[in-house]
Amino acid sequence: MASIVLKRTQQKMPVVGFGLWKVTKSTCADTVYNAIKAGYRLLDGAGDYGNEKEAGEGVRRAIADGLVKREDLFITSKLWNTFHAHDHVKQITKMQLGLWGIDYFDLFLVHFPIALKYVDPSHRYPPEWFGDDGKVYTQNTPMHETWSAMEELVDEKLTKNIGLSNCQGSLILDVLRYAKYEPQVLQVELHPYLTQEALVKLCKVFSIAVTAYSSFGPQSYVELGVDKGAPSLLKHNVTSTTAKTHGKTEAQVLLRWATQRGIAVIPKSNDLGRLSANLDCNSFDLSESELAALSALNINLRLNDPADIDGRLAIFA
Amino acid sequence: MASIVLKRTQQKMPVVGFGLWKVTKSTCADTVYNAIKAGYRLLDGAGDYGNEKEAGEGVRRAIADGLVKREDLFITSKLWNTFHAHDHVKQITKMQLGLWGIDYFDLFLVHFPIALKYVDPSHRYPPEWFGDDGKVYTQNTPMHETWSAMEELVDEKLTKNIGLSNCQGSLILDVLRYAKYEPQVLQVELHPYLTQEALVKLCKVFSIAVTAYSSFGPQSYVELGVDKGAPSLLKHNVTSTTAKTHGKTEAQVLLRWATQRGIAVIPKSNDLGRLSANLDCNSFDLSESELAALSALNINLRLNDPADIDGRLAIFA
Repeated sequence: MASIVLKRTQQKMPVVGFGLWKVTKSTCADTVYNAIKAGYRLLDGAGDYGNEKEAGEGVRRAIADGLVKREDLFITSKLWNTFHAHDHVKQITKMQLGLWGIDYFDLFLVHFPIALKYVDPSHRYPPEWFGDDGKVYTQNTPMHETWSAMEELVDEKLTKNIGLSNCQGSLILDVLRYAKYEPQVLQVELHPYLTQEALVKLCKVFSIAVTAYSSFGPQSYVELGVDKGAPSLLKHNVTSTTAKTHGKTEAQVLLRWATQRGIAVIPKSNDLGRLSANLDCNSFDLSESELAALSALNINLRLNDPADIDGRLAIFA
Repeated sequence: MASIVLKRTQQKMPVVGFGLWKVTKSTCADTVYNAIKAGYRLLDGAGDYGNEKEAGEGVRRAIADGLVKREDLFITSKLWNTFHAHDHVKQITKMQLGLWGIDYFDLFLVHFPIALKYVDPSHRYPPEWFGDDGKVYTQNTPMHETWSAMEELVDEKLTKNIGLSNCQGSLILDVLRYAKYEPQVLQVELHPYLTQEALVKLCKVFSIAVTAYSSFGPQSYVELGVDKGAPSLLKHNVTSTTAKTHGKTEAQVLLRWATQRGIAVIPKSNDLGRLSANLDCNSFDLSESELAALSALNINLRLNDPADIDGRLAIFA
């Protein structure tokens, strides 16, 4: 399986993984089991997704049935905004490992460069964006405190690699200035409507692997009621025409557009056929002009922007 | 004169200032004197502009001639990239004050969120972007170290206000999390080709005043040989039509487009007539539709991007 070698640990990160965002609790264990059975080796979770226990159950079942060993899997999770303070980082990571039923993550990411007021997991978990009264409470924990706690996770072998998500260039460059362990991965929204070329270039300069989320663009946000006006990428004529040329699905074309440029992807699907097709997205090559035609759709459309929740969270401004 | 009240000190910052970038040494003292005579009260300098001694001479002459007192002026300068380490911040600020011949700055900005290797001022000043061998040498001084040294400048009354320049939202938000003294001003490239609406909105949320540089867009970069393909804003038909409507110059229209939205400007001119006209840019109002037509020219065109110098400096990625 195609993979990206992470710089510090030389560990291989599969280029195509299975994303657990919006995988419902009730189906999550089965979905994870089926994904592993279909050949997925990377599972991309997060505290915020609220399904780590169920995902772990799917993993355990797959291991019990002899489909894989733990070391064959690359399990990613993420630190939520309410746990940025030094002591909370370790506390919640251990709790998340407990939910998964594993001893270590392969990769642990700072989910957002946003610090929100601590919420005790026994009170509410996952805490999401809002306090009990529906308001957003920020907390003055600087990124360097959080990053230093992330580095301790590595020292204590709670995760093999650490990285960032939803960060801009200037903040990544600042982390690089004080990091004992440099971020190995940056996970960001990236699709033909938001090509992020400068950011991808910066990551290449510093050997930070890039993982694209929301590869299908607006599609993932329809069910959340988010409509920023751009038509579906899965039904876009540039995507469809390219799919027809290669006898592939539109989803495969959108994924290949990323992977062919060295960017990892983490699509999600509840459908077994699509799940396998997505994993198989590296079985063909797009031409330079096909890649360029997809990239030309860029309109800097950001579907996941915390500024839409609260003006104080404008991390992409 | 129209001004913006800075949050922490309640000091008034003039909305229209005189920018010293690219004002040649030989004419600088006279230009500054004439600018003050014409009514300018804010002078926007920087260590990097290489003309602080001459600017100070113009100030001294204006004070000696009774045109203004020191306290009538708002003098801004900036910390260059090679002086980000804690001890260098104070050292160079004192040296810059000495060049100006003044006791304090009204505002001192971190010029770029970029730390370059220290260059001793006795060896080369201003040091600009490159080492003696023409290569770029970065230095791992994190922003929080630099910011804490900036705060000490306030405590020691070397500057009344401190702020940032050329920063993205995520980094500003991080500074706000650890700041003892919050940045009072953000100075960024801003013109109708680069409207920066999200960033301006973020600054408004946190009461950070915004100063636009390069208000005339590509014009300022022509003499530097930078041509990113966009036509002049000063000759653009949207600008010209609006200028004709109001009987104003194109430059006044471009400046008013910023100031009417609460953004300070720092135009430069070597021509006495234009210098006065620029200062007078608040004598008329653009209509909502005129403002919108100018904003609609936005193409996220960034003329001043350190990534063009070296891929490791991609602070806007």
